This record gives sequence, C-alpha cells and structure tokens, in this order.
Amino acid sequence: MSEIAVSTFSTTEHILTRFHQVRQQSIALCEPLEIEDFVVQPTVDVSPPKWHLGHSTWFFENFILVEYVDNYQLYQPKYNYFFNSYYESQGPRILRSSRGNMTRPSVDDILKYRQHVDSKIVALLSKDEVNDDLLHLIEVGLQHEQQHQELLVTDIKYILGNNPMYPPYQDMMMEMRYQEARPMAFEQIKEGIYEIGYDGNGFCWDNEQSRHKVYLHDFEIADRLVTNGEYLAFIAAGGYENFEHWLMEGIEWARSLEVKAPLYWYEKDGEWYHYTLRGLEKVNLEEPITHISYYEADAYARWKGMRLPTEQEWEVYCAKKHNSIPEDGNFVETMQFHPTVAESDKDNQLLGQVWEWTSSAYLPYPNYPRFKGALGEYNGKFMVNQMVLRGGSCATPHSHIRTTYRNFFHADKRWQFTGIRLAK
Amino acid sequence: MSEIAVSTFSTTEHILTRFHQVRQQSIALCEPLEIEDFVVQPTVDVSPPKWHLGHSTWFFENFILVEYVDNYQLYQPKYNYFFNSYYESQGPRILRSSRGNMTRPSVDDILKYRQHVDSKIVALLSKDEVNDDLLHLIEVGLQHEQQHQELLVTDIKYILGNNPMYPPYQDMMMEMRYQEARPMAFEQIKEGIYEIGYDGNGFCWDNEQSRHKVYLHDFEIADRLVTNGEYLAFIAAGGYENFEHWLMEGIEWARSLEVKAPLYWYEKDGEWYHYTLRGLEKVNLEEPITHISYYEADAYARWKGMRLPTEQEWEVYCAKKHNSIPEDGNFVETMQFHPTVAESDKDNQLLGQVWEWTSSAYLPYPNYPRFKGALGEYNGKFMVNQMVLRGGSCATPHSHIRTTYRNFFHADKRWQFTGIRLAK
Amino acid sequence: MSEIAVSTFSTTEHILTRFHQVRQQSIALCEPLEIEDFVVQPTVDVSPPKWHLGHSTWFFENFILVEYVDNYQLYQPKYNYFFNSYYESQGPRILRSSRGNMTRPSVDDILKYRQHVDSKIVALLSKDEVNDDLLHLIEVGLQHEQQHQELLVTDIKYILGNNPMYPPYQDMMMEMRYQEARPMAFEQIKEGIYEIGYDGNGFCWDNEQSRHKVYLHDFEIADRLVTNGEYLAFIAAGGYENFEHWLMEGIEWARSLEVKAPLYWYEKDGEWYHYTLRGLEKVNLEEPITHISYYEADAYARWKGMRLPTEQEWEVYCAKKHNSIPEDGNFVETMQFHPTVAESDKDNQLLGQVWEWTSSAYLPYPNYPRFKGALGEYNGKFMVNQMVLRGGSCATPHSHIRTTYRNFFHADKRWQFTGIRLAK
Amino acid sequence: MSEIAVSTFSTTEHILTRFHQVRQQSIALCEPLEIEDFVVQPTVDVSPPKWHLGHSTWFFENFILVEYVDNYQLYQPKYNYFFNSYYESQGPRILRSSRGNMTRPSVDDILKYRQHVDSKIVALLSKDEVNDDLLHLIEVGLQHEQQHQELLVTDIKYILGNNPMYPPYQDMMMEMRYQEARPMAFEQIKEGIYEIGYDGNGFCWDNEQSRHKVYLHDFEIADRLVTNGEYLAFIAAGGYENFEHWLMEGIEWARSLEVKAPLYWYEKDGEWYHYTLRGLEKVNLEEPITHISYYEADAYARWKGMRLPTEQEWEVYCAKKHNSIPEDGNFVETMQFHPTVAESDKDNQLLGQVWEWTSSAYLPYPNYPRFKGALGEYNGKFMVNQMVLRGGSCATPHSHIRTTYRNFFHADKRWQFTGIRLAK
Repeated sequence: MSEIAVSTFSTTEHILTRFHQVRQQSIALCEPLEIEDFVVQPTVDVSPPKWHLGHSTWFFENFILVEYVDNYQLYQPKYNYFFNSYYESQGPRILRSSRGNMTRPSVDDILKYRQHVDSKIVALLSKDEVNDDLLHLIEVGLQHEQQHQELLVTDIKYILGNNPMYPPYQDMMMEMRYQEARPMAFEQIKEGIYEIGYDGNGFCWDNEQSRHKVYLHDFEIADRLVTNGEYLAFIAAGGYENFEHWLMEGIEWARSLEVKAPLYWYEKDGEWYHYTLRGLEKVNLEEPITHISYYEADAYARWKGMRLPTEQEWEVYCAKKHNSIPEDGNFVETMQFHPTVAESDKDNQLLGQVWEWTSSAYLPYPNYPRFKGALGEYNGKFMVNQMVLRGGSCATPHSHIRTTYRNFFHADKRWQFTGIRLAK
Repeated sequence: MSEIAVSTFSTTEHILTRFHQVRQQSIALCEPLEIEDFVVQPTVDVSPPKWHLGHSTWFFENFILVEYVDNYQLYQPKYNYFFNSYYESQGPRILRSSRGNMTRPSVDDILKYRQHVDSKIVALLSKDEVNDDLLHLIEVGLQHEQQHQELLVTDIKYILGNNPMYPPYQDMMMEMRYQEARPMAFEQIKEGIYEIGYDGNGFCWDNEQSRHKVYLHDFEIADRLVTNGEYLAFIAAGGYENFEHWLMEGIEWARSLEVKAPLYWYEKDGEWYHYTLRGLEKVNLEEPITHISYYEADAYARWKGMRLPTEQEWEVYCAKKHNSIPEDGNFVETMQFHPTVAESDKDNQLLGQVWEWTSSAYLPYPNYPRFKGALGEYNGKFMVNQMVLRGGSCATPHSHIRTTYRNFFHADKRWQFTGIRLAK
Repeated sequence: MSEIAVSTFSTTEHILTRFHQVRQQSIALCEPLEIEDFVVQPTVDVSPPKWHLGHSTWFFENFILVEYVDNYQLYQPKYNYFFNSYYESQGPRILRSSRGNMTRPSVDDILKYRQHVDSKIVALLSKDEVNDDLLHLIEVGLQHEQQHQELLVTDIKYILGNNPMYPPYQDMMMEMRYQEARPMAFEQIKEGIYEIGYDGNGFCWDNEQSRHKVYLHDFEIADRLVTNGEYLAFIAAGGYENFEHWLMEGIEWARSLEVKAPLYWYEKDGEWYHYTLRGLEKVNLEEPITHISYYEADAYARWKGMRLPTEQEWEVYCAKKHNSIPEDGNFVETMQFHPTVAESDKDNQLLGQVWEWTSSAYLPYPNYPRFKGALGEYNGKFMVNQMVLRGGSCATPHSHIRTTYRNFFHADKRWQFTGIRLAK
Repeated sequence: MSEIAVSTFSTTEHILTRFHQVRQQSIALCEPLEIEDFVVQPTVDVSPPKWHLGHSTWFFENFILVEYVDNYQLYQPKYNYFFNSYYESQGPRILRSSRGNMTRPSVDDILKYRQHVDSKIVALLSKDEVNDDLLHLIEVGLQHEQQHQELLVTDIKYILGNNPMYPPYQDMMMEMRYQEARPMAFEQIKEGIYEIGYDGNGFCWDNEQSRHKVYLHDFEIADRLVTNGEYLAFIAAGGYENFEHWLMEGIEWARSLEVKAPLYWYEKDGEWYHYTLRGLEKVNLEEPITHISYYEADAYARWKGMRLPTEQEWEVYCAKKHNSIPEDGNFVETMQFHPTVAESDKDNQLLGQVWEWTSSAYLPYPNYPRFKGALGEYNGKFMVNQMVLRGGSCATPHSHIRTTYRNFFHADKRWQFTGIRLAK
C-alpha cells in the first residue's frame, strides 16, 4: 500500500464513523439468520457466518490491538486458534475444513468479543497520537471486513440454498440485476499502449499495484453481460455435453460432478428455477447469468465463437466507459445491495452486477509491492492457479467497486455471483 | 418380535406414562446445550442433536401415525427427506454426511414437530380400539428413541470434546465408572451346552432371538474390566508400535490415523488428561478404560497373552452372575446416568459401565426372526463387518441393559463408551 | 502346527520329489504368458505374476535358508524389500500397491533367483541331519507356494480379463465346472453336537485347529451349487436394484461401483458373455455361478428366501457326504485343473468347483494354536472383517481341497472363483 | 498452423528421410530397456514406454492414413481404444490411469504395428500427388512423436528411478549439464515494446502464434541457471519449512507430500545423492538444479529476494542473446542428447539445459490460431492452471529447442528436467 493513501483518512472522526458503520453492517447482514444458520460449513469454501464475525474481529485484535495497546491482554487466547484464517505467522489454527464443526464460541460469545474489541479500537482512536500507520491498518481492517461481508452474503446463500427447504434470506429487493434485453453490441478498442493498475488517492490492495503500461491489440468487447436466456440456449444446444467448447479440465470437472447447469439451478417439468436470496424463483431470461465457473464461462464464449476478455482489456474498456475511479475510499455504504444506482443509469451500468470472469490468471503486476509484515500473506501467496474476476456484484460493498479491483477464484468456483462478458 | 412381548404393554395408561417420560427424556438430555451445539456433524458417525430429535419423531409419525390415523396429513412432507435415516422403503433421504449441513428445520421447528406428533400419538392411544400391534409399534418407537438417547450423549460428547475449548456438558455426576482397584480374578466356566438369546416376557430386539443352544469349551473370564492404569502400561510398553499384538487392519488403522491413545486422551507434560462430560480431567487410573476401538481392545488382550470373550461366553458368564434379565421392558428411567445403582452393589456390578467388545462378529442367530415390513431394515441389514458389544454404558438407558442385548459397531469406532473384559 | 504332522513327511526323498514338483508347477502355470503379463497390478488385490514367483522363493530363502544354512549370504539383500509380503518381523517392504510399478528384478532375474534358492534347498535336504522342524518348514513353504499358485491363476485371469483384447490364457480344458442341470435338492441335518476342525495326520493350517465341538440346530443344505441360469433370474428380476435383498454395505457397494452382474460378465445385444481363461464366451446357464462377492451371494440367497450356510454347517454336511479328508498332505498334483476328477463322480462332486461363501466371519477356533515365530503372522492377523469360504475351485491345488480348509476374503472380493450354496 | 510453414517441407525425399530418422529414434531410445520396463505406469503422469510407441503410431494411422488412403482398413480397430490419448473427437479410450494395466498389445505387437503404419505412410508419400496439407500433417506427426521422445526419456527415468534397485538407463554421456561455477550476473533489459511469438519459416505449434507486441518494464535476468549447490543452501537454510517463501498451494503441497528436496534426491549419511540416467550418483554442486516443481522454483526465487522471469521477459532476453531462431524445422537429430553442442559454446549456452519455469500462466496469445479439426484439441484445451516453461532440456529433441517454444506443466510436476533462472 502506498503512503499516498494515508492522507485520505486523515481525521479520526471520519475513521471512527466509518469504523462503526462497517462493523455494524456485518451484524446487519446476519440479522435475518437463525442461530443455526451461523454454524455450518456445507463445503470447504463456505465458512460459517459466526466464523466471519469472529475472524474479522480477530483481525483488528491481532494486527492492531496487540501491536498498539501496551500490555494488551487477549480477550481469549484460544480465539487465535479459532479465528486465524491462513496467517502462518500468527501460529497454529484449526483446519479450514473444521470451521463448521466448532459450535463454540457461540454466536453470543462472538458478539461479546466484537463489542470488546470495538471498544478497545475506539479507545485507541480516541488517543492523541493516532499516527498514519495505525490509520492505514484500521482502513485495511475495514476493507478486510467488507470483503468478508461479501463472503457472508455468498456463504449464507450457499447455506440456505443447499437446504431442500430453500428458505429465503430476505424478502427485500436484492440480487437485483438489470434487465439486459437490448441486443448485445461490441465496443472496438484500438491497439496501443495503455496503463492499468491503481493510481488514485484512496485505498487499494497491493495486488492492484503498481500501475504500469501494457500493450493491447485491437479487440472488441460486449457492452452488456450474457443473460440467462442466452445461456439457456447454450444448455439447450447440448453445450455441456460437447467437448469442443471446453477446456480439458473443464469438461472433466463437469462430467465428474455431473454439472449440467449453473449452481442453484433446478429443472422441474421443463421449467428452470433457481434459488435466489428471496427463495426459489423462476429463472428470469433477461437477467445476467450468474453462479457459473470459469470453465462454463469459457465454454460458453467458445460456443459463441468468441472469448473472454483479459483483465487488461476489461480494465481499459471499463476505465474508458466510466472514468469512474472513486475519488477516495471513504464512501460509506449502509446498504449492502444497491439497486438504486441501477435505476439512475441502467443502460450504462457496467460495474456491480456480477463478477466477470476474465481470461487472465491471477499473477503479480510488474513491481508488485507486497504488503509488509504479517499482512504480506494477504494477497501474494494466492497467485497461482486462480483466475481474475473484475467488476463486483450485488453482494460487493459499494466502495469496493472500482475498475482496478482484482478479485480471484479457482476456475471451478461458482458460489460467488460470477458472470460472463464476451470479447473477440 | 414375538407376540409374547405384547402382553406386557397391556394397559394404555402404562404406555402413555412411558411415552411421556421417554419423549421428555430426549429433551432433558439436550437441556444443557447451546443452540449451536444442535447443528453440527464433526464426523459422519456423529449426527447433529437436532437430527436425533427430529428422526425419533419421524419414526413415530412415519411408522405409526401414517399407518393408523385415517387420512393423516404429514406435518411437513419434506421432513421425510431430512429425517429418514436409512430406510430405503421410505423413499429418498439426504446423504448421511450432509446432516450437519442442514440448518433448517431449526431446533424450534423440530420441537414444534415433536409436540405435534406427540399430541397425535396421545390421541391415537386414547381411542378405544388400541390393538396389540399398535402397542408393539409404540414400544418399538420408544426403544428406538432410547437408543438415540444414548447416541445423543455420545454425539454431544464428540461435538464438545473435539472443540479446543473443551466445554463441559454437565457438572453433575456422570460418566461415573466404579473404581476397579481390586486385583483381577478369573471365573472358570465349564465346557458344555448353554442357551443364549432372549426368552423373557419383555421387549427385545429381533437380533436377540431366537434363543438357542451353543456348545462352549472351558474358558475363564475376568471378573472386572481393564482399567485406565492397566491400559497405560500397554501404552508405556510401546503397545501401539509393536505389530505383534495387532490385527493387520488394526495396526494399519493406528498408523494411518496416528492413533497412540484412546479417543479424547491428551498428553501434556507427561501427564494424561481426557475429555469427559464434565470437561477436561486427569485420567483416573482406577476407572475402566473407555473410548477404544476393537482393534485396541484386541491388541491389549493379545499383549496380555489373553483374548476377548465371545459374545456367547460373555452372555453365559453374565447370566450366571446376575440372573438378572429384567422382568419386563416397562421400567422407566428418568435419569440418564445411574451411579446410584453402582453404590449399592459395587463389587458385583457387571453391566452398565462400558460396552464390552467381544470377539464375535455381528451375525444372525439360528432362526433369526427379522422384523416384518419396513422395520425389517432395523437390524438385519447391518449384519456384516461389525463386532458385537455387550453390557451397556453410563449413557445407556437403564431398561436397555440386559444380558442378551447385542450392540454392534465397526471395529474402528471409538466414540461410544467402549471397554475391555479379558478372557482366556 | 501340531507335531503330529511331522511324521508324515518323514523321508527326504519324498519331500524332495514334492519340492521339485511344486516349484516346477509355478513355472508351468506362467508358461502361456507374455513377459508383459508378468509385471502389472491392475488392482491392489492382484499381484504381478513375477512377484508371486519371487515372493514364494523369498519365503524359502528367508524362513529356511537364513535359519538353517551357516553364514548364508542372501542372493540379493534388496529382494527382501521387494518380496516380503506383509511380515512386519521381516523388515520394511514396498507398499503393496506399488508391486506393479517395479519392472526390476526382471522375470529372468527372478527365474535365476528361483534356481539359486532351489539348489540351496536341495543341498540342505541332502545333508544327514534333516530334522522334523526343517521338514515341517519345507512343507509350509510348499503349501504356501501352492496357495500362490491359486492366486497366480486368479490374478492372471484378472490381468487378461480386464484387457479389452480379452486374450485367452490357455485353450486347454480349464475352468471346467460341472453341469448342475438337475433340480436342487436339500439335505436335512439334525440338531446336535458335531465336531469340526482338522484332526488328520497330514498338513493343515493353524486356522483349521483345534478340532472342537459345536452345537448345530436343524438345517437343510443344497446338494448342488447355484447356476448361472438361476443367477440370471435374479438379475432379470431386478435383484441388483431391490434393496430388500441386500445388506446395507452390499447395496452401497453395488451402487457406488455400478455393479449389475458378476465380475467378467458383459451384456451385448441382450446376450450375456463372460471372460473365462479360454477367452470371451457365452455364459453357460447350467454351470455354477462364479466371481461374485459375498454381498451378491447373500442377496441372492435372501431373494430365494433362504440363506448361506455357516462354515460349521458346511463342514458337517461335507464331511458326512464325503468322509474324504485326505490321508496325508503328500499328494502331488502336476495338473492345476482337475476335470478328470469330475468325470469320475459328477453327481456327487461337492468340492473343487468354486469357493463357497459361508455366512461365517473369519475368526479363531477355540484354542486356536497360532503358528510360532515369524509365521505367526500367517493367518491370525487377518481375523477381522473377512468371511469364510469353503470348498476350493478349479484353480485350487488338489491337495488343498479338504473339508476343513478355511479360505477367507473380504465381502466385496470377486476375483477368486467364488460361488453360492443355499441353506435354510 | 499457418500455410507459410508448408514451403519448408517441399521435397518428398526430404520428408521421407526425416520420417525414417524420427521413427527410428523412438525405437533407439527404448533399446536399453528390458521388456518389463515397457509396461508400467508408476504414476498417472508417466505412460508406459510401449504406450508411447503405440500412441505415436496411432497418430499417423488415425490422422493421416484414415484420411488419405482410400478404404483404409485399420490395422486393429481396438487400438483406437488403447492409443487415443485425449482426443474426444476420436472416440472412447481407456482411462488414462489404466494405461499401465494393459499388458497387451505386447511390445512385439506394437513394433509390428509401427512397421505396418510406416510402410503405409511411405507408400502414401511415394505417390505423385503429395499435397501441402499432407506434408504438414506428416510434419505435425513427427513433431508430435518427438515430443513423445522427450516423454519417453523422462518416463523411463521415473520408472527406473523409483525402483529401489536404481538401474541405470545408459552409461553413455547423458544428462550432461554444463558446469555453472562462474558468478551469476544479471543482464539489464530496458522498458519498451517488444515482439514475441514465432514468425520464422519452419514448423511451430499453434500456441507460439500469433507473433505480437508486448510492453515490458525494466528488468534484469540471470545469465546462468541456479545450481545444485545454490539450491542446497536453500535447503540448508530451512527453505522448505519457512512459509514466507512459499505460495500457499506450494507449502501445502510440500507438507502433504513431505517434500524436502528435488525429485530423485536422497540424503544418506549427510551426503546428497540423486538418481540420474546413469544410476545413483553424488549430487554435483555446480550443475544446474533440476526436477523441481514450480512451487519450489518460486520459493527459491523469493528466498533470494528475486522472482522468476515472465515468459515474455525470457523470450526477449533469449532472442537478444541468441538471434538463433532455427531457420527451418528440417534439422534432423539422430542423437537424443547433445553434449557436443555444449562443448563448443559453454559460456553462451542458454537453451537446452533444463526447462526453465517462468512466472507466466499458460494462456493463448492474442489472435491465437488454434489448429483446425481434430488437432484443435492439441494445445488449446490445456490452457488453464498450467505454467509455461521455456528453453528445453537434455531430453528435448534438438529441433524443438527454439526461443519461442512454449512448454507447459502443472505447478506441482517435477518429473521433467525443470530448473530455475532468476529475474528481478
């Protein structure tokens, strides 16, 4: 993280407000849950909601309170074992696949833990000598918690959506994707040198840096996402069975798991339904397709005689279209889901519908400045065998939606809100 | 089940009392739990406590209400999918290993389900024409629920005991095993024809029948169980490393899972601790060893130059010692744990300390009368690759403790309260 | 092994003749193979033929030459690592599943190893002081080699029969099973005390001892084996799909592996074919069914409303029928396959068609006298989770066919020549 | 493949000579083997040598004879099932992991198959109307066979090197890597636009095209490979245990497989040995390190405070250093191993020592022209979750060594001759 960023969080007041709002938002997201829903881990990728609440708190305690508070006494030393996610430097931790076996600490215990840590952070920020490093760490902690807010939504969806009762999460407007009924047009972008990577004054992750030049060749990129209806044509054409469209690993994946449709899709009497956060619904043909793997996105594109864009192409197109790199990272959202944005600008809307698979592997940029210290484990150590996604989804906190943000998942993952933009 | 049994449940009043008590006992056993504890399945053998509560209720609804109540409407048709354990005749069911992924129905939903079914059963029993078949089915349902009460205790122990916080289940007296400090003596039993199997007037399972003759050779059998202290001598002598004591599958099991002590045992600074229902405690050297696999029991016996008794030897010895086949199955316990029994008869106590591994494979007796109909899946289809255990443990409902009762588990299972009696 | 046995191998001349014949027979069995056929291990149960040739030689070198020859130098010390099967006392060995990865020592190397060890054994037997212990060990080595001769045939069948070219092993008369077209009759045996176990003067394995009394109840046992045609009726009736006939583990086994017919059976245009040692042939409806698991045998019997006999019932029936315990173990066969025996006594033939699954788990007899020393690992350590088979097959050396011989395999194994005799 | 390539194979005579030489070279490489060595598959990546001989022949029969010879009768229709590697368009094939279970067709059968196909190809080339498409296909077939020649060497090494006898493959000079004792220097390359990809007149694979511009930033790249001695310093410093150097997947891979050194390395009495094609030898500290995974290469570089080069950086550096793109693809090698090249130009030698892991994922170039028809499955469908390697090794046919050649393997693979060049 560059030092420029610091100036933007300069007032304690500002950061305190943001701290309260972000921390509160995690609780708000869990509000519709039953206690039972907080506990399970139906697949290794999906963490129990209570684990997210504990882990994001541990992050503040472990990386900030322990460092900045004299003689800080851990709230409960064993929590380090429960809530360390993957930081080797922070000592042993429970096996990732065992998170869903741990009934204690209880939800109530964890809420108390949150309150304890929150009060200590507030006290820390109320002191006179709040320095820039601390402000930066607080901001990292909040950005980190916001990433877990997105995971909370996708993990809750998985927990509820894999239950044969298909319980709704909320009835309010969410998982709202804009109708894309207009014909797909392609924007042409000319060959030449472009710059990509973050260079604003707000917060960014280390993996968005350094901003650097790339040479792109002429390409065309779709001005809207692929819809459910278009994807159904692929299914109807036998797309899942025809090896010609698929990567080798992709078709082996589909065959061994008997994948024949996106995650959460069910066919009944010739009609397609899918589980949404509102419950089981008929598939809306005009919404963007989501919950597909990279393999499926890639196969669909090849079936169409096209391809997925690289992350560089995507960023150049997006920057051109929007010129919308957020001025700073201080934007505070109190709503997880942002359909109102959509209303205002339906046709031009590019970001925040689904995470768009790119054809780029997740690798470091030139002069990648890995975070220093323990946080060096944050992004860099995952840079192999994952693909980059761009854009952001209905579950993404609004301040995380920017043209340079690099999300990344393994090619077979489908529980995020993932989708397809075509290129050629 | 033979028709003789029926006469013993002859009054509706009697069965109603027992019904209330048994059903209430399942709830009482869960009383110390947090809601979170009801949900998880840390290993495939261990079912979530809320599943036990739902399944034992489904058993009454599915095998009795559906059969005996005209136009009975299922409380919630999807519950058949959730709560069917393994009855192929009753339609599809969730994968056993997915029980711990299901957060709904919630504990509260299941408690309501229990009340609903209870009221329907009570109404059914309040009618005039309560026939013997129905009484027998009610009794089977109660016996079945009692078996799940034992599993509730062992599964709760596993859920709490695998949590690094080692939360206690209850502080009251439980897991009380009698001290066995006296020297081990061996009773000699003479060669000849003996009879084994159930022939009382109470309830028994189909697998305890038919009573039949066996020819036994001279044998000697220990008058008390192997203690923790004696087992520690085996550990200290390198017993887990020396192949000579072990069955081939046993030592491969121990090696691959790095088993070096009973389940729940932890060494710390040269001292052995184990998790009990009261929390983590120092191992009491004079209590009977428990939570060991058949492989370990067999290896220990061979290390001592002895063997485990066959189930026939065990039953003959036990019957001789006790003459204590319960007169009928109507005994009602309201306490899960029965240390008071122990107090009264410490020296002669044989049954109810731990389940004792025998050297007998679980197979049908001559003229085995498998239950008719759907309940035919109850016992018979498990008669391969399991070993018989006899006796009963602190978690066993008192009325299930009888000399002819045949418990059975795979040779590697350790989460039940299992122990060792030597023979030669 | 009891000391009685020794007297029967009393002349060196006798044992030398037998030694040459048995050792030669292993080579003769491999005569039809290509070098390539000697090397592979298509499933973990099936060992490469060259491994059998090396292992049976290692047995003589390791348990006899090393013990009886002063300053004996191992032919090649590394062979201990290659050819030790499962003797923990004999040091480390290659993982069982890696046998088929070892291209060296070559077939030629192993034949030289055989010659070397043979000459040393002959020299040892030519000395004056040949004592009884040595004679006994030689006999164990020969019996052991004969067991591997049976495995050679079944393993070769598996290697060739899983090759889509279905190459024949030999064109000569083999896998000849007698036609069983006559109606199945049942012999009735009366309740009472019987004796089982070996008490002859020849060789027997430790697991056939001690001879002891058992109490049997009235039973009936079929006078012939179940045929292919009868088994096809089970298939045609949907037997593989109907859970009611199956053990739980059995139907899970069949479902997960998609088992719908015996091993080596293939349906083509509504006609059933099976691979035999002569190549692919139409199924002969009147021959005994073979290559089925215990699960299938058990399911078939339940479908017929009957059961499999216990090993005690089988032995009592067989002994009564035959009175044919071989006088001694010195019988020398030079033919692996013995259809001529059949010719002479077609109707009464009981033994040597297929290994007949019994309903008995493989467990020690009362007063089981485990072999002393390293050979103590021979039989005893396998006494868990296996089922007993009785009789012998076309691949069984003739001298191994006796009423007391206890073969044993896991319930899912099918590559031996296994079959079904009904009881009730 | 572009049409430009065709002109270079213009004379039938030329191609016939090359055909004979390449086909003969595959046989020559197997000359030192025992028949047994041809059969096994000790790990799924390693194919049996006889399979390589059959598959490369099937490639000619299936993609050329079937297409170009009227009424061509397959030599043996079942061979399609045995020797199809992964071409979905060519029908079903044996499971990859079963290649090592197939003892037939025998080595002899396959040699006859080779002769048959060779004679048919020669006859086809002897006709008048040999068109460019055919010449191109022949060339693809030969290039394909040469790729399998490299695999033959690495697979043979694995087969012999995993045998506890460590049999040598050949005693002649091979696996000769040049000593790198001189200090490592770094060449500086300036930021700017560069071109990469193939644009010569010879043969190239589709994945080397299209040649295109890339923008590179200032970088430095080592002028020699990392040596065994340098890598030993990493081991000695605890490099395998310190998570800080590793990708997350890398350290999990190393831990789960207990990797503590390169493949084929063994420590004995404090001394390091490794298996080479000459047998077991002491590790030569001055030779380039080889047989390491991408994870290890990446960890080593991070330990040194550097990184691996991207494939673009590598190609630019290499092209600058060599200007050595082979003029055409017609170069014929009759020696698999080429130490003589080394002698002539030790200091400048860059290519052909080991395959150098780059930090680039294997992805298509802009305007990637996938082969048409069935051969479209050749390269493109593997473009996910693999890393690019550049350079070539002692096992690489000389004509395959060019600056634009893109080899690719999964990050955990070590059985190829893989190594490390540092960048920063």
